[in-house]
Amino acid sequence: MRKEAAVLQPSNNGNRYELTSPTAMPKAGGFLWNQKMMIQITCRGYATAQFMQPEPAKYAYAPNIEAKTFMQPEQNYYAHHPGRFVYVKDLETGELFSAPHEPVRATPDRFVFSVGKSDVAWAVEKLGVRIEMVMGLPTDDVAELWTVRVTNVSGRPRRISVTPYFPFGYMSWMNQSAEWNPDLVGVVASCVTPYQKATEYFKNKYLKDKSYFLCETPPDSWDASQQAFEGEGGLHNPSALQEPQLSGSDARYETPTAAVQYRLSLGAGDEREYRFMFGPAYDEAEIRSMRERFLSKAAFVRTADEYAAYMARGRGCLRIETPDKELDNFVNNWLPRQVYYHGDVNRLTTDPQTRNYLQDNMGMNYIKPDVARRAFITAISQQEANGSMPDGILLAEGAELKYINQIPHTDHCVWLPVTLDVYLSETGDYSLLNERVRSANGDNFTVFERFSRAMDWLLKLRDDRGLSYIAQGDWCDPMNMVGYKGRGVSGWLTLATAYALNLWADVCAHQGATDLASHYRTGAAACNAAANTYLWDGDWFARGITDDDTVFGVSTDPQGRIWLNPQSFAMLSGAASPQQTARIIPQIDEQLTTPYGVLMFAPPFTAMREDIGRVTQKALGSAENGAVYNHAAAFYIYSLYRLGGQADRAFSHLRQLLPGPTEADYRQRGQLPVYIPNYYRGGWREEPRTAGRSSQLFNTGTVSWAYRCVIEGLCGLRGEGEGLVVRPQLPKGWDGMKVERVFRGATFKVVVQRGEVGDVVVKMGGVVVPEGRVVEIKEGEVYELEVVVPK
Amino acid sequence: MRKEAAVLQPSNNGNRYELTSPTAMPKAGGFLWNQKMMIQITCRGYATAQFMQPEPAKYAYAPNIEAKTFMQPEQNYYAHHPGRFVYVKDLETGELFSAPHEPVRATPDRFVFSVGKSDVAWAVEKLGVRIEMVMGLPTDDVAELWTVRVTNVSGRPRRISVTPYFPFGYMSWMNQSAEWNPDLVGVVASCVTPYQKATEYFKNKYLKDKSYFLCETPPDSWDASQQAFEGEGGLHNPSALQEPQLSGSDARYETPTAAVQYRLSLGAGDEREYRFMFGPAYDEAEIRSMRERFLSKAAFVRTADEYAAYMARGRGCLRIETPDKELDNFVNNWLPRQVYYHGDVNRLTTDPQTRNYLQDNMGMNYIKPDVARRAFITAISQQEANGSMPDGILLAEGAELKYINQIPHTDHCVWLPVTLDVYLSETGDYSLLNERVRSANGDNFTVFERFSRAMDWLLKLRDDRGLSYIAQGDWCDPMNMVGYKGRGVSGWLTLATAYALNLWADVCAHQGATDLASHYRTGAAACNAAANTYLWDGDWFARGITDDDTVFGVSTDPQGRIWLNPQSFAMLSGAASPQQTARIIPQIDEQLTTPYGVLMFAPPFTAMREDIGRVTQKALGSAENGAVYNHAAAFYIYSLYRLGGQADRAFSHLRQLLPGPTEADYRQRGQLPVYIPNYYRGGWREEPRTAGRSSQLFNTGTVSWAYRCVIEGLCGLRGEGEGLVVRPQLPKGWDGMKVERVFRGATFKVVVQRGEVGDVVVKMGGVVVPEGRVVEIKEGEVYELEVVVPK
Repeated sequence: MRKEAAVLQPSNNGNRYELTSPTAMPKAGGFLWNQKMMIQITCRGYATAQFMQPEPAKYAYAPNIEAKTFMQPEQNYYAHHPGRFVYVKDLETGELFSAPHEPVRATPDRFVFSVGKSDVAWAVEKLGVRIEMVMGLPTDDVAELWTVRVTNVSGRPRRISVTPYFPFGYMSWMNQSAEWNPDLVGVVASCVTPYQKATEYFKNKYLKDKSYFLCETPPDSWDASQQAFEGEGGLHNPSALQEPQLSGSDARYETPTAAVQYRLSLGAGDEREYRFMFGPAYDEAEIRSMRERFLSKAAFVRTADEYAAYMARGRGCLRIETPDKELDNFVNNWLPRQVYYHGDVNRLTTDPQTRNYLQDNMGMNYIKPDVARRAFITAISQQEANGSMPDGILLAEGAELKYINQIPHTDHCVWLPVTLDVYLSETGDYSLLNERVRSANGDNFTVFERFSRAMDWLLKLRDDRGLSYIAQGDWCDPMNMVGYKGRGVSGWLTLATAYALNLWADVCAHQGATDLASHYRTGAAACNAAANTYLWDGDWFARGITDDDTVFGVSTDPQGRIWLNPQSFAMLSGAASPQQTARIIPQIDEQLTTPYGVLMFAPPFTAMREDIGRVTQKALGSAENGAVYNHAAAFYIYSLYRLGGQADRAFSHLRQLLPGPTEADYRQRGQLPVYIPNYYRGGWREEPRTAGRSSQLFNTGTVSWAYRCVIEGLCGLRGEGEGLVVRPQLPKGWDGMKVERVFRGATFKVVVQRGEVGDVVVKMGGVVVPEGRVVEIKEGEVYELEVVVPK
Repeated sequence: MRKEAAVLQPSNNGNRYELTSPTAMPKAGGFLWNQKMMIQITCRGYATAQFMQPEPAKYAYAPNIEAKTFMQPEQNYYAHHPGRFVYVKDLETGELFSAPHEPVRATPDRFVFSVGKSDVAWAVEKLGVRIEMVMGLPTDDVAELWTVRVTNVSGRPRRISVTPYFPFGYMSWMNQSAEWNPDLVGVVASCVTPYQKATEYFKNKYLKDKSYFLCETPPDSWDASQQAFEGEGGLHNPSALQEPQLSGSDARYETPTAAVQYRLSLGAGDEREYRFMFGPAYDEAEIRSMRERFLSKAAFVRTADEYAAYMARGRGCLRIETPDKELDNFVNNWLPRQVYYHGDVNRLTTDPQTRNYLQDNMGMNYIKPDVARRAFITAISQQEANGSMPDGILLAEGAELKYINQIPHTDHCVWLPVTLDVYLSETGDYSLLNERVRSANGDNFTVFERFSRAMDWLLKLRDDRGLSYIAQGDWCDPMNMVGYKGRGVSGWLTLATAYALNLWADVCAHQGATDLASHYRTGAAACNAAANTYLWDGDWFARGITDDDTVFGVSTDPQGRIWLNPQSFAMLSGAASPQQTARIIPQIDEQLTTPYGVLMFAPPFTAMREDIGRVTQKALGSAENGAVYNHAAAFYIYSLYRLGGQADRAFSHLRQLLPGPTEADYRQRGQLPVYIPNYYRGGWREEPRTAGRSSQLFNTGTVSWAYRCVIEGLCGLRGEGEGLVVRPQLPKGWDGMKVERVFRGATFKVVVQRGEVGDVVVKMGGVVVPEGRVVEIKEGEVYELEVVVPK
């Protein structure tokens, strides 16, 4: 075995993360997206790609008929999983390897997997041959652009074959075929999207039912049949590679594939460069057009530049320079990129859950507030006549509420003021509230009126005790049986409602609607009082009360004894007094804090608890049972930063959202620090082998909150009304940091240092800024601030 | 490569079919079923198993989330497809192979795959070790019973490890785990069936969410984690087999597997025998109970005997001895077994298509007429208030019409008299007609009245021209756009309606309802006349007329010019005069007859014809486009036998329903002759490489008709009213045959010979039987008949 000591090499400029072994973190991968597609690809070459037409579709499939389902955490890979591979064979010795690593799995002499912000690349050396692979995407089209460079690094002349192998998989039971197309210089696979009802035919008629693999340089031979290529040899040693050339096979109601072979004689140091395209199309004319537009060296360079510019538009509003270089790298490059992804393509769904859509756009406020503004209007235009919000927001014509969006949840309205808070902070644009929005059910209200109606619905949806009904769930945990009979209530939702009402009362006050402000503040107080009356358990708040009137998430529960969310929102809502907070936080430290982050609840369930529901059925140490559910952790971190005086605790949990910085931690998590996953496994006491493992799922509401925590909390740069309030919260061990923040078109350059002060002092041009609040901010100006924080 | 000259070895008694190479027909397999489950397993070890609880479920899964769909033809296999495997490693040399063949795919020194009527078995030799594997099922429980015998055939002492590997696959995204259970001596895997709506929980609560692999003999080591077992080595060379023992791994929200290892020192000729069980269970108590009941040598023997007796109850009513030994074998053993399967478990669905349910039970009349009788009542009890039949028959409480049964087809009523015809032939039990049946919609009619109402509905569902509306389909071909606007008509259905009406008129006449008889005969004549007026194309009948009034299946159509079904049913219905028949048959010979059977239509479509629909979108040479759709072929064969004077043509097509008899034909079809598949690929001119290939799908309405053709046609032993009419139709080249037929409890021993006669002569005890009609048949009697047919 080769040495795997240094598995991770962050690049100099932070734009890349490199992994130096395909086995240390076998699921580690990168992801790229554009306006129409997304691809996640692992260091070993397995890939999962989707494009929108307008529902999510594929152009490379599993080997069997896959269920259409939401993106799964901890996805499994297996030999015939879709992927992108290049076989290399030494024609003199018969030795074989494949790049990046699958399917041959030969131990490489050198391996670098490099996840960039706008491409994914590998360099693999074996048998004296170097294979460099780079994948990029266009900005507005659905296609993968692949460059494969082959270099003879053996120092002697070589004869080798190079065989890119891009399997199409099982495309359709109705019809599938593939063949070499000499005009297009590639393999074209065709299928018919399966349907049974005649009406479906018209829906499917213009789907892109062709997939193609195009070669810039004509190969020497090819195969279009999976069976012909693979033969008895199997994927690790395909039969076709034991012959002088590929057989030129076609696929007729057989599994289509694309394998093309180049036979090369290379002098010492010689190199060859190939370009390929892989993607879906409606017909041959579209394939031809794609080829003409993209498949050349010049077009690849131009497209890569355009794509880099597209990514740069998502660079976010913050640059930090701190003692934690890995954090800098993540916050300056990867975190805004992940926030941008969420706001840009809405998780590649046509019906995002309402809470996700709003929170994803909460993050977009820091990147493209105009996009977030439109999202608020899109969302609120789908408000129900009774003031409630639907479970999902429909983004495409003909879209339908699917999966989880058919389950009634009661929390969606909460996210309106919670996420609007950031929009107003970032833009100060209260004019949004005056926009008049007509909904599908015909009613016609301003945004302000609609938000008030949503708040009134939240106030109404409470029981006699003043606690919020949960129906079949709140937030994202499938607590689906607490209230399915219509009586159960949610402690968290009661507190989140109070938080939302208070935020909305602030907006009402700002708009001069003092009666409304008072109305909602009274409502918030009533929620908080009810929570304190019925849910305070002595050291923390309970999670809820079931249909059968059992309070749960309390000290007498052997499992699910304490839940994180009610505590975070009790702090945000004001329900928790300072005395209560002083009791809560030590309990979180003791019961929920792990080496991998803060658990959503503890102890984990080991069996179904029927009066709570699905969350209790999940496996120990995975989503959502017993997990570090990062979204909940981020709420908690935010609540600590808002509370103040918690800089060390908040930062230590914020830092846990990322794998590393130690190699042992990367390995245990199994993920590169290029995104925050939706969870890390919990169960650190019960299942230490798997604890901390990453879900590898980059769709998560966590990122908006994480970015907010960095901006508003760690850096303490929060918009309030007409100004920017500056109040950094440095963790211990940091002597200072530098921050550059774009805010309402102005640039703030902030130098933070420790000093002999009692409280934070903010100076601009040597003059103290009262309350640290910079006002009269002018677009295009640069403001240089010096901030001293207590030692 | 080893010699593969003789791939097929039928066993002496016809109860087995043996394949001597795993590569000659890689998809060839066998299938076993009992009252609660079905398993199809290939010669190479891949398996697809289902059990009913009551909807179809699995206990071994694909490596990803599979779609829930109907059984697919030409199913693909891939490295991680579910299967049952045994790895054998030579501990001295490190050499490895696996039995039966996957995943290692080592070329065996000897290979026998043996499909028996009540078990499936292998004998594989490699590295001087013989592995014999046998799989059986219990009769009333869901479990696979595996025997693995290991013999040292090398003539010298050996040290080997033997590692059965039964992967569970990806059980559930909600929760999956597995571990070694020392009490049960096996690996127990657990999951939670995924659901989102709270109501689903209660549906799922008692599902068998555990899968187990139990060992009679405790192994030396084990793995329960797929990843731990497979490691970097991959399935063809698992990492765990490179270690001194398996690692004892568990799976925690990871893919579960079962691998157990025995390390053996074997003297020359030594053998070891192991027994294992594989299946689903609700809990550990059920697993324990299953173990106690089944996992011992004595229980295996007893269970195999019980199962053989269960299969023997489906042996059918016919034994033949002809010059075609392979046909004898098939007709005496395999064909009734396949018919029995269909009638016994209804294709393992809770909502069989009405036409399938009726036709499957048509075959059951020859095996268990009491089952068929109950099926008629079940079906007719679901008749709609307007006399029509629903698209599917619900067999379990809570069952729903799924998939194709949500598409309106108009042919279901036709199958009532068509299939009843066989029940009455076989049993003479007209009392069924007097049964009173109350339907779910509350109406209350006798079976006779209900059949009449169904016939009246057929008569009514015709247009002004007297042609039958097609809606979104008739029969099983997805001709879903001919009449979706409500105007298109079906030529086939018009003729099938006439056939059904005539059959029903016969029953009415028998029951003395002469007015009704005349009413339905007049209706039939009207259908036939309409067909002749609007659909006779000069040499054949058209297939139909579209919504937009385009007649199709006519000589001017470049594709889909002639369709088989309208011709068969024109002969059965009486629409085709002798002159017309004399024109039709040569066209079928010329345009539809291929080396692999009679095509459903020709020429095949190469693109969607929107006014016909889905059938035209299917790939060339596969289902259903351009295929030898055996069900349609069987209708045609039946119509030829009914017509008379077509013995040679009918037999040659009947014989084509089976692969063989040449080795080249087996190989091209890729199937053992142990069942008739639903189709063989057509496209013999367009796609000779894949033409003739078997669908490998044994669910097909073909078998009832094939058995009927053999019994009534070839053997000419048909019940009519009070008697048995004897009129064999020997093909040329046959000098005679012997037939034993059980009919209404009596046994007929028939010797058929060629002789110098003008027409068939039937003698009993030397006395000529008038019209060949044996009457006054007594249960328990044996009748010996001598039949002479013209030379």
